[in-house]
Amino acid sequence: MGKGVHIQELPGVGTRYDVALGGGGRRVSIVVSRDGKRHLYVFEDAGDEPDAVVELTEEQARKVGAVLAGTYFTD
Amino acid sequence: MGKGVHIQELPGVGTRYDVALGGGGRRVSIVVSRDGKRHLYVFEDAGDEPDAVVELTEEQARKVGAVLAGTYFTD
Repeated sequence: MGKGVHIQELPGVGTRYDVALGGGGRRVSIVVSRDGKRHLYVFEDAGDEPDAVVELTEEQARKVGAVLAGTYFTD
Repeated sequence: MGKGVHIQELPGVGTRYDVALGGGGRRVSIVVSRDGKRHLYVFEDAGDEPDAVVELTEEQARKVGAVLAGTYFTD
């Protein structure tokens, strides 16, 4: 499952995960801070400037993650 | 876990999940199509126009989802 995910330690900050989305430099970067917060960066092309950045709490990230992963179920 | 996720069926298309990210209308919308593709929309404020849209295959969505949910591990 490691394929397609580039992981980089950010000393003093946390860990950055880059997921390439195929052609054109499109990618999603997620920075997981040591306090559990996530920042989600969306790049719609190969540029250095993200098209969107959102900060997620651990709880919000879990929800978004479950929906994306297909494991989100309501009671 | 349903709290904070608004789910809407899109007839003939799939299912839309909206995850509110706290104040200011910030939210992430994910449309899961019936063929497994996901579209991720990021709204940095309350507007109707997303700041970024990316299309993810099922595999890519699983990776991004695992990173966000904190369940991503390399072998």
